[in-house]
Amino acid sequence: MGSGGSEPRRERDVLDAIERRRRRPRRKLLDSRITLSHGAGGKSGHDLVEGVFVRELSNPLLEPLGDSALVEAGSGRLAFTTDSFVVRPLFFPGGDIGELAVNGTVNDLAMAGARPLALSAGFVIEEGFALAELEAIAKSMGKAAAEAGVAIVTGDTKVVERGNADGLYVNTSGVGLIEHDLRLGPDAIRAGDRVLVSGPIGDHGMAVMIARGDLELELELESDTAPLNGLVETLLGSGAEVHCLRDPTRGGLATVLAELSLAAQVGITLDEASLPIRPEVNGACEILGIDPIYVANEGRLVAVVAPDSADTALAALRSDPLGREAEIIAEVSAEPPGLVVLETALGGTRVVDMLAGDPLPRIC
Amino acid sequence: MGSGGSEPRRERDVLDAIERRRRRPRRKLLDSRITLSHGAGGKSGHDLVEGVFVRELSNPLLEPLGDSALVEAGSGRLAFTTDSFVVRPLFFPGGDIGELAVNGTVNDLAMAGARPLALSAGFVIEEGFALAELEAIAKSMGKAAAEAGVAIVTGDTKVVERGNADGLYVNTSGVGLIEHDLRLGPDAIRAGDRVLVSGPIGDHGMAVMIARGDLELELELESDTAPLNGLVETLLGSGAEVHCLRDPTRGGLATVLAELSLAAQVGITLDEASLPIRPEVNGACEILGIDPIYVANEGRLVAVVAPDSADTALAALRSDPLGREAEIIAEVSAEPPGLVVLETALGGTRVVDMLAGDPLPRIC
Repeated sequence: MGSGGSEPRRERDVLDAIERRRRRPRRKLLDSRITLSHGAGGKSGHDLVEGVFVRELSNPLLEPLGDSALVEAGSGRLAFTTDSFVVRPLFFPGGDIGELAVNGTVNDLAMAGARPLALSAGFVIEEGFALAELEAIAKSMGKAAAEAGVAIVTGDTKVVERGNADGLYVNTSGVGLIEHDLRLGPDAIRAGDRVLVSGPIGDHGMAVMIARGDLELELELESDTAPLNGLVETLLGSGAEVHCLRDPTRGGLATVLAELSLAAQVGITLDEASLPIRPEVNGACEILGIDPIYVANEGRLVAVVAPDSADTALAALRSDPLGREAEIIAEVSAEPPGLVVLETALGGTRVVDMLAGDPLPRIC
Repeated sequence: MGSGGSEPRRERDVLDAIERRRRRPRRKLLDSRITLSHGAGGKSGHDLVEGVFVRELSNPLLEPLGDSALVEAGSGRLAFTTDSFVVRPLFFPGGDIGELAVNGTVNDLAMAGARPLALSAGFVIEEGFALAELEAIAKSMGKAAAEAGVAIVTGDTKVVERGNADGLYVNTSGVGLIEHDLRLGPDAIRAGDRVLVSGPIGDHGMAVMIARGDLELELELESDTAPLNGLVETLLGSGAEVHCLRDPTRGGLATVLAELSLAAQVGITLDEASLPIRPEVNGACEILGIDPIYVANEGRLVAVVAPDSADTALAALRSDPLGREAEIIAEVSAEPPGLVVLETALGGTRVVDMLAGDPLPRIC
């Protein structure tokens, strides 16, 4: 922040960016076929969901497009979520598809402020898949569920002919109970709020990329996959005024912040210097020409909290082993609505958009 | 029934069958790779679930192996279920994968006696899939959900590279609310109970097989795919004492009855002459050498009711358009436990086992 000349430049940059956004035609689904970028968790996927699923399945609960839906059930409030996992390779440093599937769904429930009650597991298995691998994956799901304190209560298995699936796909859905009166979500975000991230970003995506072996990089890097329900419980129990929680999975931190700024119609200023990123991840990203803020995480959360709760929230996160390296990374402002601006470590600024293409397919 | 000579023969047959069963070694998962029959909804699938998933994910809620799990949520009781759909072709006479996915999950909830509250939809889509087909499928899901009176509240989309999925797989999970004190399930089945089926069997499986076009059969036959929650409501509201409900999908009526007889440790005597089967289905099955009692249904239910409730239950089912062709088809007995016996129309008897191979893969 603040050498004399950077302020006007920053303002001009931002105004230009807003103008470019305004002039941009409303995106239509011009593609007549599905492309990999539709599944990347960024812009194209957003368009697909808006253009096809929201239109055809429209109902008030689906509209908010969060990772979980809230369902009134008798006298209680439930969170309900689903996620399919197509990660390659199936086993990677720090985890496997089974652990990822359990943690991913536990985390979607946790981000809704819900206590995970029960998970389902659906398998689509390719004929010829090794039974030993299936057993390892099931074992790993059982272990992850036990660690998260949740049970896998129902399941389904389908087998498709050789060549019709890439080994194995796993779907996990989850039901959670909301036991408080907080209304977490973009609607609760206010100007002045602070944004925290619970630990280093990009570990999962980079660990998976490296495990594929086609990068010719040898790095000791493990996926951050972890169940975050305990960390959320600690955070909500700390007294900090929490407004919104998200786990920055596909599309990374940048995509989550861009979605929140759009949904809440606020500006978010991200301080690059404060971002926790491991040197290995930074290095690998530089070699690959990828920005770590777009790389997937599977054991990190983003919390938007009231300004005077930032320190309490930070201390609460850091008190838990999964949040030990938490940082305050961004600030919310009224202007410019719908825009995330990154203040670079060198004092410049640039607009952060959702992930557009798909530099890292099959990451979760 | 019963020309003089058939009784001893029947008894001997059954005793022999029991003895063969006793002598059969306990099945072990000797296969080291997944085969199509693991996904057929019959014996191998049962072994896979018992041998891998139940062992690794073991918990009291998963043990009953029903299509839904019961979850205590605060003061209420929930049913929770998941199902993946891999049917080929995606569009078939009487429905498509989207409608099937919605109805399949609605029906699993309905069989638990639950009122469907909310569904999730997870898509794994192959790169290059036509957007128009995706839209048609989403539209059909929206329509099916509206007909069943349930909302699709949360979703997920993953895209995999060309060649890594056969067009599209859909997972639907569902949450339902149990608003009565009935305990439906195999445990409630008693000797003397009657078994009803809500309509002709085998329509779905045969319609899909014929739609594949490789049978060189031209028949006007439509899938029976339908949401059964309304029919269940009518049945439960009729005053009939209902003990257990199942939808005979993969593996057909025979597999459901075999599972129930094993789970309840009762005998079930199925009266072939009373089975409602369309002549087209019977004819196609004869040509293909398939027994219609093993063919999948997607809009039929099997109800086990107390003996003196059979007529009330039959009338209730027949009062609903989806149950107009309902029949009483079988009777439960204390002996022989775990065995289903078919009394053929010709007066003979044979033991009905679970589906062993997979004559009809990718049927749902």
